[in-house]
Amino acid sequence: MKMCYLSTMNLFKKIIFLDHAAGRENPSAIYDEGVEAKHALEEARTRIARVLHVQARDIIFTSGGTESDNLALLGVFEAHREKILKPHIVISNVEHPAVRECAKEVVRRGGEVSVVDMREDGTLDPQKVLHAIKESTVLISLMYVNNETGAVHPISKISRLVEEYRKKRGSKLPYIHTDASQAATVLSVDVLKLGVDLMTLDASKVGGPKGAGLLVVRPGVKIKPILFGGGQERGLRPGTENVEAIKEFAQALEEAQGQREEQFERLSSIKKTFIEEVKRLLPQAIFNSPALSVPSIVSMSFPGLLHEFLAVKLNERGVCVSTGSSCKNINTEEREALRFSFGPETSKKDVLEAARLLREVVI
Amino acid sequence: MKMCYLSTMNLFKKIIFLDHAAGRENPSAIYDEGVEAKHALEEARTRIARVLHVQARDIIFTSGGTESDNLALLGVFEAHREKILKPHIVISNVEHPAVRECAKEVVRRGGEVSVVDMREDGTLDPQKVLHAIKESTVLISLMYVNNETGAVHPISKISRLVEEYRKKRGSKLPYIHTDASQAATVLSVDVLKLGVDLMTLDASKVGGPKGAGLLVVRPGVKIKPILFGGGQERGLRPGTENVEAIKEFAQALEEAQGQREEQFERLSSIKKTFIEEVKRLLPQAIFNSPALSVPSIVSMSFPGLLHEFLAVKLNERGVCVSTGSSCKNINTEEREALRFSFGPETSKKDVLEAARLLREVVI
Repeated sequence: MKMCYLSTMNLFKKIIFLDHAAGRENPSAIYDEGVEAKHALEEARTRIARVLHVQARDIIFTSGGTESDNLALLGVFEAHREKILKPHIVISNVEHPAVRECAKEVVRRGGEVSVVDMREDGTLDPQKVLHAIKESTVLISLMYVNNETGAVHPISKISRLVEEYRKKRGSKLPYIHTDASQAATVLSVDVLKLGVDLMTLDASKVGGPKGAGLLVVRPGVKIKPILFGGGQERGLRPGTENVEAIKEFAQALEEAQGQREEQFERLSSIKKTFIEEVKRLLPQAIFNSPALSVPSIVSMSFPGLLHEFLAVKLNERGVCVSTGSSCKNINTEEREALRFSFGPETSKKDVLEAARLLREVVI
Repeated sequence: MKMCYLSTMNLFKKIIFLDHAAGRENPSAIYDEGVEAKHALEEARTRIARVLHVQARDIIFTSGGTESDNLALLGVFEAHREKILKPHIVISNVEHPAVRECAKEVVRRGGEVSVVDMREDGTLDPQKVLHAIKESTVLISLMYVNNETGAVHPISKISRLVEEYRKKRGSKLPYIHTDASQAATVLSVDVLKLGVDLMTLDASKVGGPKGAGLLVVRPGVKIKPILFGGGQERGLRPGTENVEAIKEFAQALEEAQGQREEQFERLSSIKKTFIEEVKRLLPQAIFNSPALSVPSIVSMSFPGLLHEFLAVKLNERGVCVSTGSSCKNINTEEREALRFSFGPETSKKDVLEAARLLREVVI
C-alpha cells in the first residue's frame, strides 16, 4: 500500500486505491495520484517546450516518431481537404519510410505529392524545394538529418524562403514539417531557429525510452487527429498518456541538447579518426556522407560486395552496424551501404578496432 | 560495454555497438542484439497467442487499447470502401470513447453507423444486435465488459448468431470486434470461445505496462493499416516494436489469465461485502451494475448529490475512485455515478473502510 502525504489532513494516511479499471498514474483522474501524474506530465511538457523554444501547448505527445510523422502529414492533409480540391505535399526522395508511406497514402486519398531529388552529393537544394510549391501545396515535409547518410538538410534556409513565399502570397500555407529525430544529439532542435511549423522527435533516438514521441504543432496550424477517442493532447491524440516514458523523454532531451555541442566536437574527432583509418586500411571504400553531415553517422560502400554479408561478418566479430536503418531502404536501386552510427558511449578505441575488423571482413 | 557470448567464436568478447541511429533492442537489426530482440518479441507474441488461443501471426502489437480500437474500426472500414458504397458498422450506446469516436469518423468518411441501445438494466440484447445488421454491414464492435458499470455483454452468444447469419448469407461479413481490455483479469479472453474476428487488449489494464496493446486479427479478415511506415507487424502497424513493454505485457497477461478464476472468486466475495456494507450504511445508494457484471467493478449513484464532489471528498480521506472512466462520460444525460474498481491488491478491509468513509462524505 502506498503511503502518501495528504495536505488537507496534515498527516500520513493509508491510500485505498479503488480505480483499477482506469489504472495507476492516470493524468485524467481527479484524486491525488492522478493529479500528481497530470503535474508530472505537464512539467515534462514544459521542460521539453523550453528546450525547443515553443509553448507547452504546442507539444503533442505520441507513441513515437512514426506516429508523429503520420499525424503531421495525414493530419494536415485531412484538415485542408474540404477547402482545397487536391491538397499537395512536397517531400524529398530520401525521406524516412513513415513520411514516404504517408505520402503514398495522401495520393490514395486523392491528394498530390511532389518528390524533390537530392543533388548528386546527397544534399538538398532549397531552390528546388521552392520550385515544387504549387497553389495547392499545404505541407513540405523534409527530414533534418538523413538517417542513412547523416546529411544535414538546410531546413532553416528553406523555412525562410517559404516564409517569404507565404508573405508574398498572403497565406499561411504551405506549412513546413521536419523530422528531427536523428538531429537532437548533435544539433540544435530549436524550433524558432529552424523556423518550422511542425517537428517530429522520437524519445528513443535521443537516449530516452521506447514508446514515446512528440509532434510540435505551432499556433495557427490547421491539423486534424488521425486517431480518435478521448480528448487528450488538445484532442489531437487520444489515449491515456504514458507519463513515465514522457518524463524520461524530457530528461533525455534536456541532456542531449545540453551536451550536443560537446558531443558534436567529440564525435567529429571520432568520425575523422574512423574515416582516416578506414581510408588507410581500405582505400577502395566509398564514403556516402556529404561534407555537411552529422558527426554521428558514417555511411560507406564497397562496390561488388554484398553489404548484408559484411554486416553479418562484422557481427560475428562483435561489431553492430546496420545496412540501412531499421526501416526499409529508401530505394532498392540505390547503392548498398554500411552505416556506422555513434553515440555518447562510442570511443576512439572502438572505431579504430571497428576499422581493423572491417578490414578483416572486406579483404 | 555489454559483454556477450558469441557462439561462433566460443568466447566472451567485447561488443562495439555502432548502430546508435537505430537504437538498442531493435528487432529489425541483423546483429546479435537485434536478433535477440526479435526472438524476445516473437516469444512474447507466441506466449500471448497461446493464452488467447490464436496463432502468433494473428497478434498485431500497437501502442495501446485506443489505437487497437482505431485499427479495428477504421482499418476494416477502409478495407471495404472500394467494394461497398457505404460500409456500415454496428456499435452499442455504451462503448468506450475510442469506439464511439471512430464510429463518428466512419460517418465523416462516408460510412454508416447503427447504435444499439442497452436494455433498461444495462445489458445487451443479442437479437437487437442481429436486427441492426444490414447488407452493407462490415463490422460489429461491442465491448466485452463495460468499463463504467462492469456489465458483461454476451459476446460469444452474439458471435454465434452472427456466424449463423454469415453462413446463411454465404459471406464472411460482418466481422465481430470486441474490446476485452476490462475483462482479462477476471474472465477468459479465449478468442475461440468468444468467437470474435478481432479483439483489443491493453497491457496496462491487465497489470502490464503503459504503452502497449494488441489487436487480434483472425485469418481472412480484410483490414488496412491506419498508420503508415515500415513493414512491421504484417504491414498493419509501423514503427519499431517496444519489445521491453511487449515482454512485460505477455508476462502480465499470462498471470492475469492464470489467476482469473481465483481473482473472480476473491473479488466476488469482496464486491458482495462492499455492496452489503454500503446498503447497510447508506440505504439510499442506487447500484448501477446489472446482475451479470464483473466482480471488479461496482458503480453506484446518490441522486441529488454532485458525484465529482463526492470523489474529491473521498480522495481527501485517501480513497481513490472515479466518476466514470479516465475517458469522457458515455452520455451527458446519463445518471452520475461513482465507480469503485478492484484489483489484485484490494482487500475486504479496504472496501469496508471505503464504505465507512463513503458514508462520511455522503451524509
